[in-house]
Amino acid sequence: MSPVTVARQSLIGRRIPKLDAPEKASGQTRYIQDIDLPGQLHAKILRSSRLHARILSIDTAKAAALPGVHCVITAADVPEQRPIGVNKDQLPLKTDRVRSYRDEIAAVAAESPEIAEAALGLIEVTYEDLPPLVDPRLSKQPGAPILHDRAADNVAMTFTYQNGDVAEGEAESDFVVEDEFSLHYVTHCCMGVSGVIAEFEPSGNLTLYSNTQVPFLHKREFAELLGIDPGRIRIIQPPIGGGFGSKLDIYPFEPICIFLAKKTGRPVKLVFSREEEFLASPTRQPVILRLRSGARKDGTLTFRTVRTLHDNGAYTSWGATTPFVMMQTFSSLYRVPHCDYFTEAVYTNNPYAGSFRGYGNLQATFAVEQHMDKLAALVGMDPLDFRLKNAQEPGEVTPQGMHFKSCGFKDCLTIAARRSDYADKRRQYEAERRQPGTVKRGIGIASMLHVGGGAKIYPSDGCGTILKLDDFAHVTLITGASEIGQGSETVLAQLVCEELGVPLDAVTVVNNDTDITPWDVGVHASRTTFIAGNSAIGAARKAREKILLAAAKVTNLAAEQLDLRQGAIVRSEDGQLLMPLAKMLRSLHFSDKAELVITSHYYEPPSQHQDKEFKGDVSAAYAWATQVVELEVDTATGIVRLDKVTAAHDVGRVLNRLGIEGQIEGGIVMGQGYALTEDLLVEEGVCRNPNFRDYKLVTAPEIPEMDISFVETQDGEGPQGAKGVGEAPAICMAAAVANAIENATGVRITSLPFTPERVYRALRAIED
Amino acid sequence: MSPVTVARQSLIGRRIPKLDAPEKASGQTRYIQDIDLPGQLHAKILRSSRLHARILSIDTAKAAALPGVHCVITAADVPEQRPIGVNKDQLPLKTDRVRSYRDEIAAVAAESPEIAEAALGLIEVTYEDLPPLVDPRLSKQPGAPILHDRAADNVAMTFTYQNGDVAEGEAESDFVVEDEFSLHYVTHCCMGVSGVIAEFEPSGNLTLYSNTQVPFLHKREFAELLGIDPGRIRIIQPPIGGGFGSKLDIYPFEPICIFLAKKTGRPVKLVFSREEEFLASPTRQPVILRLRSGARKDGTLTFRTVRTLHDNGAYTSWGATTPFVMMQTFSSLYRVPHCDYFTEAVYTNNPYAGSFRGYGNLQATFAVEQHMDKLAALVGMDPLDFRLKNAQEPGEVTPQGMHFKSCGFKDCLTIAARRSDYADKRRQYEAERRQPGTVKRGIGIASMLHVGGGAKIYPSDGCGTILKLDDFAHVTLITGASEIGQGSETVLAQLVCEELGVPLDAVTVVNNDTDITPWDVGVHASRTTFIAGNSAIGAARKAREKILLAAAKVTNLAAEQLDLRQGAIVRSEDGQLLMPLAKMLRSLHFSDKAELVITSHYYEPPSQHQDKEFKGDVSAAYAWATQVVELEVDTATGIVRLDKVTAAHDVGRVLNRLGIEGQIEGGIVMGQGYALTEDLLVEEGVCRNPNFRDYKLVTAPEIPEMDISFVETQDGEGPQGAKGVGEAPAICMAAAVANAIENATGVRITSLPFTPERVYRALRAIED
Repeated sequence: MSPVTVARQSLIGRRIPKLDAPEKASGQTRYIQDIDLPGQLHAKILRSSRLHARILSIDTAKAAALPGVHCVITAADVPEQRPIGVNKDQLPLKTDRVRSYRDEIAAVAAESPEIAEAALGLIEVTYEDLPPLVDPRLSKQPGAPILHDRAADNVAMTFTYQNGDVAEGEAESDFVVEDEFSLHYVTHCCMGVSGVIAEFEPSGNLTLYSNTQVPFLHKREFAELLGIDPGRIRIIQPPIGGGFGSKLDIYPFEPICIFLAKKTGRPVKLVFSREEEFLASPTRQPVILRLRSGARKDGTLTFRTVRTLHDNGAYTSWGATTPFVMMQTFSSLYRVPHCDYFTEAVYTNNPYAGSFRGYGNLQATFAVEQHMDKLAALVGMDPLDFRLKNAQEPGEVTPQGMHFKSCGFKDCLTIAARRSDYADKRRQYEAERRQPGTVKRGIGIASMLHVGGGAKIYPSDGCGTILKLDDFAHVTLITGASEIGQGSETVLAQLVCEELGVPLDAVTVVNNDTDITPWDVGVHASRTTFIAGNSAIGAARKAREKILLAAAKVTNLAAEQLDLRQGAIVRSEDGQLLMPLAKMLRSLHFSDKAELVITSHYYEPPSQHQDKEFKGDVSAAYAWATQVVELEVDTATGIVRLDKVTAAHDVGRVLNRLGIEGQIEGGIVMGQGYALTEDLLVEEGVCRNPNFRDYKLVTAPEIPEMDISFVETQDGEGPQGAKGVGEAPAICMAAAVANAIENATGVRITSLPFTPERVYRALRAIED
Repeated sequence: MSPVTVARQSLIGRRIPKLDAPEKASGQTRYIQDIDLPGQLHAKILRSSRLHARILSIDTAKAAALPGVHCVITAADVPEQRPIGVNKDQLPLKTDRVRSYRDEIAAVAAESPEIAEAALGLIEVTYEDLPPLVDPRLSKQPGAPILHDRAADNVAMTFTYQNGDVAEGEAESDFVVEDEFSLHYVTHCCMGVSGVIAEFEPSGNLTLYSNTQVPFLHKREFAELLGIDPGRIRIIQPPIGGGFGSKLDIYPFEPICIFLAKKTGRPVKLVFSREEEFLASPTRQPVILRLRSGARKDGTLTFRTVRTLHDNGAYTSWGATTPFVMMQTFSSLYRVPHCDYFTEAVYTNNPYAGSFRGYGNLQATFAVEQHMDKLAALVGMDPLDFRLKNAQEPGEVTPQGMHFKSCGFKDCLTIAARRSDYADKRRQYEAERRQPGTVKRGIGIASMLHVGGGAKIYPSDGCGTILKLDDFAHVTLITGASEIGQGSETVLAQLVCEELGVPLDAVTVVNNDTDITPWDVGVHASRTTFIAGNSAIGAARKAREKILLAAAKVTNLAAEQLDLRQGAIVRSEDGQLLMPLAKMLRSLHFSDKAELVITSHYYEPPSQHQDKEFKGDVSAAYAWATQVVELEVDTATGIVRLDKVTAAHDVGRVLNRLGIEGQIEGGIVMGQGYALTEDLLVEEGVCRNPNFRDYKLVTAPEIPEMDISFVETQDGEGPQGAKGVGEAPAICMAAAVANAIENATGVRITSLPFTPERVYRALRAIED
């Protein structure tokens, strides 16, 4: 009988449906909405009905008397509450003053959400209005209302980054351009709204069912907030219907829910309505951005000066810290010898911004990439050539300290340009501009740089993994990394399959319980595939080593002569089947020296913390992308319609082709919404469109044709060569659309979104 | 400033409330009854209304048409079903024949339990009666109905053990006694009844919420049963309200629930009513036991011949295998040079027995310890002295191959006798017997031998542990061992605390999910403290080593000079506080070479499988106990009232004093019920008392005074020296009560239970 041979099968680069797709597609996924604990109460929050006011009194007596109400609390009932947020500048329940319509004043726990809602209507609050402050340009003006005693100038946060000497750079410049860009409010619109269930065990331990993206950071933060040992907080994440950064911070509803659970001794559930999600979840950071850039006649960039004013809103969340990322684009997307960057985030009575996919980079890229087009025009170069001249290359260490060990930027530029026929079409559309007809075509290009190997912001940027194989060669991968819809558990399972030669359905991923999973910093900075992937690989390699050593003893071959393929131990040389993996595992287990294959690994990327001047190689790898947008502008109506997006992304290596295509398609659509349709209308501090009728998300019929190319630079540190790309695809779109509109119409618009009205007015040079 | 010193604190031997006590005491524990999955259906089972019959037809049409019914199944609907049980002699749903009133014929899944119950009433079954067989003495007689084609003689199982030559032993004997003992049906009466929830994921993976005691064995068994990969079955154990062995086997309700989940595509929950629990959960093995024993004049035991007939019931579960344990008592509790043991388990139409705390040892001890008293009387020795003369000692290897590396038997005998004043009271009560008065006092002694270091029955008797420390020195202990109310998680946490010097509330035990926990054979054979304890210690020692090595680097001391105490790293020599453990863990984690402390360990005891002759050192340690019972017999009514139980147990070492006292008290009460009050009345195959009014459990007012002593033999292999004692305390009671009744009345009763009627009749020599 001739020996059976087993071929090596790799899942890397294949199109793998997400592991959780069948459950999601069939409606069986149990989101936080579907979790009901025995004895559970439902909470609702009363928010301010004034923009800026003193609270004179709150009368909760009638609400408390409503049958079915278990508890009504105001700040007076929780004297122990401590401030939250990035600046620790708000209490969960406001005491004597409200600073926005989002402000939390009281909360009810009741038998049903309906009773809780009814009880809110019975709470009587009297206010004394204070002067409003809704324009950040006025925040520092003399006589402006001061929102927080601790910030007498209304400045919440500042950031400064400098390299070289911009005066020198300007002196060397043949061309200088300057513009002010105005970036609007949008919000995440997660299909899964914010929610939490809080429950105290009789031991005093706290369990939170939470949609958070950062469970381990939250353990610590909630503990500080509540004054308890963080070890005694357990965070369980139900399947999360999207995060996009919105679930990175603690918001008042979470401690409020905990206070109610503590007071009532019951599990308390608090899930936002869609309207509440619009009103009281974070936004993308609105920014007024003044950029001054220069170039020599030969097309070399010379300097950039950046001044941005951030509307911080009433309190400070992660949005205020987006300059960390913005400055990277200004300093390092292209080679710029001189750079001077300054941001000020000022308090207003407006909503506050959080972290949002791209984290300031959409705003920065919107400005930078328009200036690249403008300078190219002045220099007289094709915009593509101008970019190629200034683009980063592999091996570069930028003045900000970013080291591009792998860099596919120029490939992204050339591939996207070639596949979209950018150069020819650009000239053609520019020529057509002067021809008759109201509908004009345009093509625009924009590129981006973003962290692709984590970002060392916290003391550690690592992730832990525990791997367990059972007697049937079924693998449990216990990872610190959170799945928030991005498909990470599928990619992590793939990476484990690659090391252990098992099929995908042999892997179960456990990733949602801080009592069980090892530490991870959380889902942010496009880090999960890279960091958690390397961690999973590390644990799987230890398991592989243990298995092959054991198999070597049995087979009288050296471990190096063995391989794991298709659930079997084989001879590497010729793939000869030696024994099924499950049998090997059982023979290890059911022997005198019984052993199980259980391993663990902690991966910490070789990145650096930035110093006080924001210099340092903050990520272990960097992702690059170029996107080319083709569109039509109906100059009669101002309507912009996207035809096609050609995207080329340096992703290091494609792991799950289906997953990464989905990430990129989704990001493009999100960028499209940011550019064209999405606009959270905040007028005098009031959100005017808190619903999906008036807040216009891009829907299927409006999605353009897409052509996506992958530049596989095989990053040396990346898992199987991959880089993180979660945020990248959303970043270029607004800039590319702006450039395409200019190509179509000759008019450059520096404010977003490109609604028909804004475009119509711009074409006719009517002030906003 | 003088250095702070930290004392070593040990929890070993202290009185530690169970970790889950606050939840249980406050009613917050979520048993399977409290779990409701979204979309869940409720199942009920239709059982046979005939003792023994052919099924001619089953009409489910009316039931299926009842509104709210989703599915009605009979065997015809699941042609794929495979046989279950120890002998694989029954199908979950019976096809053409029923063999007992327990037999499952059809099942319904409906919107509510009430609808399912109503639907059962609409199922029409026609039968053709077959001749009944309810007396095991008749099973092998010619012309007896044959219950299973595969067993033409109605014999389900036989066991033979032989050592020496009993004829020779009898020839050497000066005294020979012989009796037939008759042991009745009792049942476990778990406060938590049987229950399961089955759910298929869209991937085809099966999740079972199950009260099983053996989740990892069940994974494999369910997989065989269903024809799927065992790796794709996940078993989650909700908190379990007692098992006592009843949850060791698969019973028909479990696959039936799975079939319904499969058919309906919904989660299906099936939880027994209390009546159903009496009718369709297992019993303790009923046995007719003939014992012939001999001794020399000098008090040396010479031989034992044992013949037992087991009523196997209609199908075979674990009860049939109790001879494994019974023969140990006959062969090895005392030194017996010649032993001949034979068991036959025969089919009848009665209920079938399962595993039950003590596993045959109550029955064997009941016989052996009465013969010890009878032989002592014939020899003319005090029963205590006679026992001491024949008792095992440390170092003995018995003919069955059991090696008593530690053995506190003689200490148990002497301590229990001394503390109860056994010898004097026995003589006094014997003297009082002849005095006037109807109420007689008696004292009786009995001892037991049981496995105390696991039992190597399965390919492995081991247990795996994963240990994870977080940044706050909070420990998660992930153990394969199941908590079924016995307090194992508290003991395991204690053992970890001992190694890591952390307080008990710093430990979280995770022990209920086969996807997460490492393998363990399950809760049986009193093994959890011993096996899982050693596994937990192994993992904790690895963590300790890693921590101390890291601390050594920081402190410039050798690891051997360091200790972990009260959450801190100290200098062993003088306890000088060096740094908090949490700080050390964070400095390990938040460093360039970032590491987490995660360890795993698999412990396999150094025990042996028995050979085909049932010889081998099957446990890594053996537990011993002596219990002395004092009681009163009202000879006018036959009522027996226990006054006091004096127990001395060789437990190796006391770990949790409160827990072990609880185990022993609970075991004594269970033994008391077996001896005096509990009696599952099975008449013509019908259970006549399926409720707590007619089935008499011992309740608080009847519980006697207890005096419990611990003999701490510090077993060399045991975790901190401890042995398993889960089953031990229930084993001696019936025997000791029988001996005490004889002491009080001069009448020896060989059938259980000692109900007033049986005692009354025995005192008057009326045949049962």
